[in-house]
Amino acid sequence: MKIMNPVENIQHIKSGNILSPKGYNAAGVHAGLRYSKKDMGTVISEVPASCAAVYTLNTFQAAPLAVTRESISKEGKIQAVVVNSACANACTGEQGLADAYEMREAAAKKFTIPPHYVAVASTGVIGEYMQMDKIKQGIQAMAPNNDATSASDFEVAILTTDTVTKNCAYEAEIDNKKVKMGGAAKGSGMIHPNMATMLGFITTDAAIEPADLQAALSAVTDETFNQITVDGDTSTNDMVLVMANGAAGNEPLNAEHPNWELFLSLLRTTCEDLAKQIAKDGEGATKLIEVNVQGMGTKKEARQIAKTIIGSNLVKTAVYGSDANWGRIIGAMGRSGVEFNPDKVSISFGDISLLEHGRPIAFSEEKAKAYLDQDNIVINVFLEEGDKEGTAWGCDLTYDYVKINASYRT
Amino acid sequence: MKIMNPVENIQHIKSGNILSPKGYNAAGVHAGLRYSKKDMGTVISEVPASCAAVYTLNTFQAAPLAVTRESISKEGKIQAVVVNSACANACTGEQGLADAYEMREAAAKKFTIPPHYVAVASTGVIGEYMQMDKIKQGIQAMAPNNDATSASDFEVAILTTDTVTKNCAYEAEIDNKKVKMGGAAKGSGMIHPNMATMLGFITTDAAIEPADLQAALSAVTDETFNQITVDGDTSTNDMVLVMANGAAGNEPLNAEHPNWELFLSLLRTTCEDLAKQIAKDGEGATKLIEVNVQGMGTKKEARQIAKTIIGSNLVKTAVYGSDANWGRIIGAMGRSGVEFNPDKVSISFGDISLLEHGRPIAFSEEKAKAYLDQDNIVINVFLEEGDKEGTAWGCDLTYDYVKINASYRT
Repeated sequence: MKIMNPVENIQHIKSGNILSPKGYNAAGVHAGLRYSKKDMGTVISEVPASCAAVYTLNTFQAAPLAVTRESISKEGKIQAVVVNSACANACTGEQGLADAYEMREAAAKKFTIPPHYVAVASTGVIGEYMQMDKIKQGIQAMAPNNDATSASDFEVAILTTDTVTKNCAYEAEIDNKKVKMGGAAKGSGMIHPNMATMLGFITTDAAIEPADLQAALSAVTDETFNQITVDGDTSTNDMVLVMANGAAGNEPLNAEHPNWELFLSLLRTTCEDLAKQIAKDGEGATKLIEVNVQGMGTKKEARQIAKTIIGSNLVKTAVYGSDANWGRIIGAMGRSGVEFNPDKVSISFGDISLLEHGRPIAFSEEKAKAYLDQDNIVINVFLEEGDKEGTAWGCDLTYDYVKINASYRT
Repeated sequence: MKIMNPVENIQHIKSGNILSPKGYNAAGVHAGLRYSKKDMGTVISEVPASCAAVYTLNTFQAAPLAVTRESISKEGKIQAVVVNSACANACTGEQGLADAYEMREAAAKKFTIPPHYVAVASTGVIGEYMQMDKIKQGIQAMAPNNDATSASDFEVAILTTDTVTKNCAYEAEIDNKKVKMGGAAKGSGMIHPNMATMLGFITTDAAIEPADLQAALSAVTDETFNQITVDGDTSTNDMVLVMANGAAGNEPLNAEHPNWELFLSLLRTTCEDLAKQIAKDGEGATKLIEVNVQGMGTKKEARQIAKTIIGSNLVKTAVYGSDANWGRIIGAMGRSGVEFNPDKVSISFGDISLLEHGRPIAFSEEKAKAYLDQDNIVINVFLEEGDKEGTAWGCDLTYDYVKINASYRT
């Protein structure tokens, strides 16, 4: 796999999480939307934080996205994000919008902050109305704290079909101050480039203006969260939201700041880490697949090819079966919509070369099988169209994917 | 389902097949490319026939496509098509191209016709070279005949992971002559709009010039073969080829002929029948799914939405599990790339309304489950953007799809 920590000035924080940066608290509670699992959570900053967000590109956008957009648009700041799982509050019309506003209002009262300092997010079944009594009880029950249990409670509360919580934290030195960044995410199925059913929440104690934070997030999302796919489906609800509360005391970051690139790397590293955790926990997945495409004319084309390969059911089932069927990679590349010379394509699984300049290479099936039996699979594609590269992440397609999705609602 | 026979002047020929039109013979033999199944076949016209073909749009196109293109380009006529399964002769470079030419040459000698009257087609594993000794032995062993067994032998010989043969035949009266059309097809996995791993062979005894036949086929392919999907993957090898030998004795058909629309309907009906048989036999499929989209501004947009829905793994698994999870249809529509007003969308499964003008409708889960337990599922989507419609066909995603594809080569 790619090195998780590509910039030497970025340190991984062991057992770090969304509360690693200074000045944040979190909570996760059982509001009764699900039988027993925690189903509502919050992350709250001690002071209003600069905020940036990216949203699903699906034509159907759920009500909470509209409300969160409105909150952020006021000052570019929020103080708390409140999340529920179980119900997506999507395709719920005016009632759904009213419910999302009511959820925001309840949180604002609970934490005694203005409503526009509250962002809301929902994930779960589409087309069902929110049980507002439970939502409000859940908010009342929240007692945000900054210990490890509170972070973990939040991580659990936002999950749907996920099998594991997803978190990470990194730090870097900016203006001689330790700047920390932490994240929590959910996402398992219905995940595809351009957001899909995933929620990502990132905190940092960096000082940065909202517009600069938004620029950084938008730049990084295209090469991280938008490059993962589980099943090609995108969702109505998803967002990645970053809060930056300035508690680290650095000079405000922007494109002129000498550490701007370092900050971008910090954000990219955090997003990539969360994105890979989501891909690896794809519904029914047993393996994380990384596709690296090199030698294209543009990054966009390289990413497009990588995404098409990682999205192919045939590639995904072949990896599940540890079958080095590179013909399916060829098949996927050829329908990617990107033009390239098929006679110049080379493909390897890890270090095992399968195709060189369009010609099949004799390879040891045994070695290939042993490689594909591992948990982390890397597919490398080399073209000769240019010097740009792109990476995408996904997972294998298994019996359990079918099992999970044949009866999600019941 | 849509009525299979939408034009009253078109009659279905019971137990009809590729030999129903006058003047054709066929054969299927076991050349030893597979363990025991027949693996090579031919359809041959008694006289040179006008020919039209459409090919995969995959960037990687297998060698036989180049050779068939060249054959047809000479006069617009062919007399025989020779097909092998087991080996796709794709990604095989110059050797592959030489092999495809050699296959054509061997068939030309066998049937004592010019090489450019021979079309060749291959389907099977990508990246392996043809076993030319077996290919040539197979051609030698062919003894084309026009009985039902010969047609059936051909249908079997072209299959790969298909579980059933696919055939049909229809007739219409043109210029007071009975004009017949028959077809055979293969295709099971790796099937998606724009051809994919499928081969379709259609014969007719209609008289028609090559250019007019090509115009008819191109028009009809977009609403039939290009509207089926099994897994979104497209292949390197696929083609639909039509032969028209004129034995019916009608006046040559063209856009000025009074029965031109009738002929188009005959071709559309034949193609749609074969396309649906392919979708229903999708790898591991237990149900045929038809998606009808109505009320779009253009046919292309309607078809695009239908294709995106039918291609969604989440929709496919939900249908497999008989789960009326219309939220997944919404999710797929929203990422189709087509613009529409989400508040004006209505969705039904058969007659069971689930969503009306963007609002969820209370429906009987029991009734919905009973409907989805059937073999043939129709999903209807209504929009209010215009009056154009489009249909797509596919199948459910099951455990067996994963099983089949996790170990295709082994």
